[in-house]
Amino acid sequence: MSNKPKVSNAIIRRLPRYRRYLGHLQTRGVRKVSSNELSEMIGYTASQIRQDLNTFGEFGQQGYGYEVDKLYKEINKILGLDREYKTVVVGVGNLGQAITNYTYYYKIGFNIMGLFDINPKIIGNWINDVEVMDCAELEEYVRRENIDIGIICVNRENAQDVADKLVAGGVRGIWNFAPIDLVVPSDVALESVHLSDSLHALSFMIKSKSEQAAEK
Amino acid sequence: MSNKPKVSNAIIRRLPRYRRYLGHLQTRGVRKVSSNELSEMIGYTASQIRQDLNTFGEFGQQGYGYEVDKLYKEINKILGLDREYKTVVVGVGNLGQAITNYTYYYKIGFNIMGLFDINPKIIGNWINDVEVMDCAELEEYVRRENIDIGIICVNRENAQDVADKLVAGGVRGIWNFAPIDLVVPSDVALESVHLSDSLHALSFMIKSKSEQAAEK
Repeated sequence: MSNKPKVSNAIIRRLPRYRRYLGHLQTRGVRKVSSNELSEMIGYTASQIRQDLNTFGEFGQQGYGYEVDKLYKEINKILGLDREYKTVVVGVGNLGQAITNYTYYYKIGFNIMGLFDINPKIIGNWINDVEVMDCAELEEYVRRENIDIGIICVNRENAQDVADKLVAGGVRGIWNFAPIDLVVPSDVALESVHLSDSLHALSFMIKSKSEQAAEK
Repeated sequence: MSNKPKVSNAIIRRLPRYRRYLGHLQTRGVRKVSSNELSEMIGYTASQIRQDLNTFGEFGQQGYGYEVDKLYKEINKILGLDREYKTVVVGVGNLGQAITNYTYYYKIGFNIMGLFDINPKIIGNWINDVEVMDCAELEEYVRRENIDIGIICVNRENAQDVADKLVAGGVRGIWNFAPIDLVVPSDVALESVHLSDSLHALSFMIKSKSEQAAEK
């Protein structure tokens, strides 16, 4: 039995946001921040913020607030960002290249060790010092190099097959950009970026705002 | 005053998911679905699903369930997807091209009318029958062509400037991929895809799963 507090999906979504804003504060040289100030910045209520952060321990002091550096480091630990991850990108089209450049440019601890594609015209190319290899070698490479995370940037039709190979090779997590809900074993973490969901949420907000304007 | 029910941010996130799964059911020729069956597929509780859908009217019948086609169409309407949107993409690097290809390939009602960049080597190129124009023309183009949505795929440093031009030109919504929290007027809808937040949530899930495994 685990003694750890059960962490809701909603908190998992909020923690990276806290981290991002604390990072902004660090950059500006701010040392202390209250839950009210965080609330102003992030848009969650102060009590929500206190409750979230209390889930993981006592970081703040009443009437004093939070130490920015300390809280930032603690959230990094909670998120598992106090280590580096070995990753591969599968599908080196525009999106795969964009993700590769993004992780390379911002040096965020998710090191891309290998790139994979099925297109013979791309295989053998180099992007940011990483070679594009044949997808046929994916599973063996993942196993041999102890890859932690597979990033799937192939199309909908091939995504589950790629996920199966990544899982067979032993990855611990998959970051999926294909517009499909993948099936993976329960011990493998799966995070999907569903671009269409995001676009549809935008559409809804546009509609709501124009209805509000019409009612005024 | 509005008589519309106030819709929480959480529902806005769930509705596109309902739509996606209903789309899968349609593809498979399924005509009816119960909240329990939806719950099995989507992972929300059946009562959550009934409550969400009741927010917008009475779509289901007790003991009968939901008509898939009808509910799909209704959710489309609620999301504002029963119309098409004119969009522009600003920043035609890998990510901008990936988004352009994505919207083109999946024909999802967000029609890209113009592409914009500041790089003279790219300006004048054509991608999927759309010309890449100079960012200097962005505001005027948005105004003249009544563009609804601007998609920002430039880097962090230029994103707010691009957003200001889009807003000045009269867009109603912005889909932002730059890793920054943009500031826009309250009548403009803003949806940001924060890739780092998603990656950090994945990291957290990997950590949690390995801790669970260690405790067994």
